[in-house]
Amino acid sequence: METTLNFTINNLWMMVSIALVFIMHLGFSALEVGLARSKNAINILFKNFMIVAIGLITYTICGFNLMYPGEFNGVFGFAGWGLSLPEGGLSAAYADGYTYWTDFLFQGMFAATAATIVSGAVAERIKLNSFLIFSLVYVGIIYPIVGSWKWGGGFLDQMGFYDFAGSTLVHSVGGWAAVVAVILLGPRLGKYLSNGTIQPIEGHNIPLAALGVFLLWFGWFGFNGGSVLSADAGLVSLVLVTTSLAAASGIIAAFITSYLKFKTYDITMAFNGSLAGLVGITAGADLMSPMDAIIIGFIAGVIIVFAIGIIDRLKLDDPVGAIGVHLVCGIFGTLAVGIWGDKGVFSTGSFAQLGTQAYGVMVIGITCLTSSFIILFTIKKTIGLRVSEKEEVEGLDIHEHGMNAYEGINVNDND
Amino acid sequence: METTLNFTINNLWMMVSIALVFIMHLGFSALEVGLARSKNAINILFKNFMIVAIGLITYTICGFNLMYPGEFNGVFGFAGWGLSLPEGGLSAAYADGYTYWTDFLFQGMFAATAATIVSGAVAERIKLNSFLIFSLVYVGIIYPIVGSWKWGGGFLDQMGFYDFAGSTLVHSVGGWAAVVAVILLGPRLGKYLSNGTIQPIEGHNIPLAALGVFLLWFGWFGFNGGSVLSADAGLVSLVLVTTSLAAASGIIAAFITSYLKFKTYDITMAFNGSLAGLVGITAGADLMSPMDAIIIGFIAGVIIVFAIGIIDRLKLDDPVGAIGVHLVCGIFGTLAVGIWGDKGVFSTGSFAQLGTQAYGVMVIGITCLTSSFIILFTIKKTIGLRVSEKEEVEGLDIHEHGMNAYEGINVNDND
Amino acid sequence: METTLNFTINNLWMMVSIALVFIMHLGFSALEVGLARSKNAINILFKNFMIVAIGLITYTICGFNLMYPGEFNGVFGFAGWGLSLPEGGLSAAYADGYTYWTDFLFQGMFAATAATIVSGAVAERIKLNSFLIFSLVYVGIIYPIVGSWKWGGGFLDQMGFYDFAGSTLVHSVGGWAAVVAVILLGPRLGKYLSNGTIQPIEGHNIPLAALGVFLLWFGWFGFNGGSVLSADAGLVSLVLVTTSLAAASGIIAAFITSYLKFKTYDITMAFNGSLAGLVGITAGADLMSPMDAIIIGFIAGVIIVFAIGIIDRLKLDDPVGAIGVHLVCGIFGTLAVGIWGDKGVFSTGSFAQLGTQAYGVMVIGITCLTSSFIILFTIKKTIGLRVSEKEEVEGLDIHEHGMNAYEGINVNDND
Repeated sequence: METTLNFTINNLWMMVSIALVFIMHLGFSALEVGLARSKNAINILFKNFMIVAIGLITYTICGFNLMYPGEFNGVFGFAGWGLSLPEGGLSAAYADGYTYWTDFLFQGMFAATAATIVSGAVAERIKLNSFLIFSLVYVGIIYPIVGSWKWGGGFLDQMGFYDFAGSTLVHSVGGWAAVVAVILLGPRLGKYLSNGTIQPIEGHNIPLAALGVFLLWFGWFGFNGGSVLSADAGLVSLVLVTTSLAAASGIIAAFITSYLKFKTYDITMAFNGSLAGLVGITAGADLMSPMDAIIIGFIAGVIIVFAIGIIDRLKLDDPVGAIGVHLVCGIFGTLAVGIWGDKGVFSTGSFAQLGTQAYGVMVIGITCLTSSFIILFTIKKTIGLRVSEKEEVEGLDIHEHGMNAYEGINVNDND
Repeated sequence: METTLNFTINNLWMMVSIALVFIMHLGFSALEVGLARSKNAINILFKNFMIVAIGLITYTICGFNLMYPGEFNGVFGFAGWGLSLPEGGLSAAYADGYTYWTDFLFQGMFAATAATIVSGAVAERIKLNSFLIFSLVYVGIIYPIVGSWKWGGGFLDQMGFYDFAGSTLVHSVGGWAAVVAVILLGPRLGKYLSNGTIQPIEGHNIPLAALGVFLLWFGWFGFNGGSVLSADAGLVSLVLVTTSLAAASGIIAAFITSYLKFKTYDITMAFNGSLAGLVGITAGADLMSPMDAIIIGFIAGVIIVFAIGIIDRLKLDDPVGAIGVHLVCGIFGTLAVGIWGDKGVFSTGSFAQLGTQAYGVMVIGITCLTSSFIILFTIKKTIGLRVSEKEEVEGLDIHEHGMNAYEGINVNDND
Repeated sequence: METTLNFTINNLWMMVSIALVFIMHLGFSALEVGLARSKNAINILFKNFMIVAIGLITYTICGFNLMYPGEFNGVFGFAGWGLSLPEGGLSAAYADGYTYWTDFLFQGMFAATAATIVSGAVAERIKLNSFLIFSLVYVGIIYPIVGSWKWGGGFLDQMGFYDFAGSTLVHSVGGWAAVVAVILLGPRLGKYLSNGTIQPIEGHNIPLAALGVFLLWFGWFGFNGGSVLSADAGLVSLVLVTTSLAAASGIIAAFITSYLKFKTYDITMAFNGSLAGLVGITAGADLMSPMDAIIIGFIAGVIIVFAIGIIDRLKLDDPVGAIGVHLVCGIFGTLAVGIWGDKGVFSTGSFAQLGTQAYGVMVIGITCLTSSFIILFTIKKTIGLRVSEKEEVEGLDIHEHGMNAYEGINVNDND
C-alpha cells in the first residue's frame, strides 16, 4: 500500500511535468513568431503546431520503442510497433515512478522539441511540406535512436556519459540539424548584403516573444523537474532551484555582456541569456549546487552573446538564435557535467568524466550532422527546400496559407 | 493514515486540474478574440471574463446544489441555496478523492465553459447585457439541471448513459444553445451576400488564436485528467495519453482533409482539428486504448472540416466554428463511447450502449434547444439580442466599451 | 515511511505552487505592457524580466537569510550569506511540508513580486538603470527585512499580526514604494493638462492585458494555495475556493460600480475588480468562509473603482492602477482579517485583532515609505530617476533599447 502511494505520488509529479513540457511548444511558437516578421507568422505557427502532432504520432508508431527498446546496450534496438498494454495491466508500475502511459507521454512531449528547435532556425524561407517531411523522419527515427544510446541504456550510457534532461540528447540534437538546415537553405534575402554588411531583420512582436520565453522557463520546471522521474522531494526541489538560478544568472550575464559590447539594453539578449542558462544547466541540473548553477548559467549567458555574433558573422542566418542557444549552450552544458558538480573535475580531480562527455557530444554531433544532411539534402534535390523568391518577399503566409496573421491591422514588412 | 495520504494525493491532483481548467477560459478568450475582428476584441474579452465570474457565483448560489442534489435518481433535485460546511468539518472527505471545496471548484470551473462556447458563436453582434443575462440563466440553472441527469446520478445515469468528462454535458450543452443563438441573431453584416456568395471574415490575430488553442489543450489535461476524480496512476495517465493522441490525430486528419479539399494549408482547420479531437475523446477518454483514441481523433478531424463547411452553407454564421467543434464533435464523441472502447460495439458486440448514448444526446439536445430558445427569444422580444447596424459596422468596442483594443496601432477593419 | 510520503506530497504541492507563482511574472508583464503605450513595451518587458533575475539572485545572496533568520523574534536577523545545504542532507525536511530548496524557491518567487508592482506604477518614464538599482536594494534588503517581522517570526508575528499570503507583506510593500516613486517621478507628459483636465492615456493591447489578468489569477492558485505550506486537502482547497470567489465577486462589484458611475462597460475596471478581490482575500484566504470571501471580494471591487478615480484626481499617475490594487486593497485585505473570518470581530466580538492588523499596516507602511523614499531620492539626486522629455515623447524603446516592439506594424502613439 505504501509502495502504491509512493508510486501514485511519483506518477502525479510526472503528469504535472507532462503538462508543463507540453506548454513549452507554445513557448517555442511564441518566441519564434515574435522574433520573425509578421508576414511569416502563420507559417511558423503552422510548423510548430504540426510538429506536436507529428511528434506524438510518430512516437506512438515507433519512436518510443526505438528509444526504449528494453534490454539493450548497444547502438540500435527496437521493441516493436505501436504501444501495447504492459504486463500487469493498466496501472502496473512500468518503473518506480510512473506508469507505461506516463512514461510514453512525457518522452513523447520531449520528442517534438528537437524538431521545434530546427523550426526557429529555418524560419521565413523553408517550404512547409519539406519541413514537415524532415520533422517526420528526424523526430520519428533519428531522435529516438540517438536518445536510446543514453536514456535507453545504450553504449553511451554504458560508458558513463551523463545527460540528465537533454542538453545534448534534446537541445544539441535539434541544434546540429539546425546548422545543416541553415547551410543548405542559405540566408534570408536581404540579410547579408553584397557589400559585406549584415542587415538585422527585426522581430515583429516582442511582447509575444517575451511570453514565449516566460513559458519556456515555466515549462522547464517540468522538463528538468520531471526528468528526476519521481517526486523525490530533495532531488526535484534542488533541480528546480538549479534550473531557476541558472536562468536568472544567464539573464544577468547576457545583460552585462551585451551592454558592455553594444552599449544598449538588448532585450533579445536578455531572453537568450535565460534560455542559455536553462539549456546549460539541463545536462547536470541534478548534480549541481546552487552556486554551481549560478556559475554555469553565468558562463552560458556570456557565451550566448558572443556565439550569436559569431554565428551571424559566419553568415549562418538563424532568425531566433536557435543554434547559439540550443547547440552551443547544449554542448557547454554537457561538458559542464565534467567540470562542476558531483561528477566534475572540481569534485573528483579527474578529467575522465569530461572526456566521456566530450566523446558523447562528438559521437552525437557526427550522427546528427550526417543524418540531417542526408535527409535535408535528399529533400533539397527532390522537392526542394526553399520557397521561391517571390514567396519569400511577399511572405509565406499569404502564399502557403492564403491568409494574413493580422488581417485588418496595417503592416509593412515586405522588405 | 494511509487513507488520509491517499485522499491528500487524490485531492492534490484535483486541485492541479482546477487550475488547468481555469486557464481554459483564457484559451477560449484568446481563440475567439484572435478569430474575430479587432474592432470587437474588447467586447469578446469582456464577455469571456464576466462569464467566469457569473459562472462561479451562480454555481455557488444554486448551480452546485442543482447539479449534485445528493440522493437523487430523477429529473430535478436541489440540495438548497449556497455552500455549507460539510459534516465532518473542513477537511472531511466529501468523496474518495476530494474535499467538498475541491469538488465545488472543479465543477464550478466547468460550469462557465458552456456559456463560453456560446460566446464564440455569437461574437461580433450580440448585445453585451443580453448575453450576460442569457449566461446567468443558462449557466446558473439549465447547465446544472442537465448535468444532474448524468453526473448527479439522475435518470440518464440510471440508464447507463456514459459521458466521462462532458462531450455532451459540457460541449454539446454549449453547442445546442449556440445553434439557437446564431439563428435568432442572424449572420454578421456582409457575411452572406445577396448574390449567394459567402464572404469569409478573417480573424485579426492568428498568433493569439494559436495561443488559445495551445492553452485549451493544456487545460484539457485537467478537464479530462481531473474527471477521473482521483490521482489513480494508471487511469489518469491513460486519460492523458488518449486525450493527447486524439488531439494530435485530429490535427493530422484536418490537415489532410482540408488540404485535399482546399489545396491550401489552412491553420484554422488545424486548430479546429485539435479541438475536434479533444471534444471527440472527452466522453470516453477513460475507456479507450491509444489506438481507439487515434481513430476517434482522426474521424473528428475529418468531420470538423466538413461540418464547418456545411454550417456555413446553412448560413449559420459562427465566427469561431464553435458549433462544429463543440456540438458536432460533442455528439460524435458521445456516440463513440457506444462504438469503440470497453463499452462499444467492437468490444461488446452489442448496440445497446450506442442506443443509450444516442438517447442521451437526443434528450439533452431537445432540452437545451428548448430552454435556450425560451431564454433567448424572451430576451430578443424584450431588450433585444443584437446591436444596431451602426454599432456592428463601427465595432462593439468603441460603442459598448468606449475603447479600442489596440489604441495607437493602425487598424482598418470596419468592413 | 508514512511521514516521508506525507512530506513528499506536501513538497509536491509546494513545487507546483512555485511554477504557478513564477508565471505571475508573465501575468504582471503582460498586464503592464498591455495597459501602456506601444512605444514603451520593450522597456516594460525588460524591467519585468530583469526583476525575476534580480529577485532570485539577491534572494540567494542575502534575502532568504534576512527573511528567515532562524531563531528570531525582533526587528533584524541574518542567517549569513548564500544558501547552504541544510543539516540532514539534500532531502532533509526543512519544515513539515517542504525541503530547504522548495522553501527558498517559493519565497524567492514571491520576492520579485514587490518590485514588479512598483514597475507598473512607474512605467513609461523611469530610467531603466535607476529602476534596476532601486529593485536590487528594495527586493534584496527591504522586502526580506519587513517580511521577517511576520513570516520570519519577528515582532509583528509575536504580537499576533496575521497576513496569510501577503496582502501587506507583498502587495502593500510594493504599493507603498509605488506611491513614493510616482510622487518623485511626477506624471507622464500630457496626462494632467494645465487647465486641470485629466487626459486618459489608453493601453495599446487590451488582449495582452487580459491575458495578464487571467495568468495572475491562475498564478494566485499557487500564491495563496502554496502559502498553506502543505498539501492539506481541506485547507488548501478552501483557500482555492475563497481565492476564486473573491476574484469573481470583485469582478461583479467593479462591473456594477463602474457601470453606475460611468455608464459604460469598462474592461480595465473588470480586470482591476478581479485583482482587487484577489489582493483583498490574500491576507485571510485560509480564515474565511466562501460567503466571507464573496463579501470581501465585493467590497474590494467597489473600493478599487473609487480608489483609482481618487488616485488620479490626486495627480498620482499610475498607468496600470497598481497603487489602487496592491496598496489600497492590500490594506483593506489586511484589515479584513480583523473583521471577518475566524479572527474577526464578527466571530470573536473583539476589536483586538483589527487593532493589531492596523498596527501592522501602519508600521510596515512607515517603514516602506521611508526606505523607498531614501533609496529613490538618492537615485534621483545622483543618476536621476526620469528619462528626458525627448525620450519620453519618442518612446523608451527606441532610446533605451534601440528597437520597436512591433517592427513593421504601423503604430502611431507618440502623443
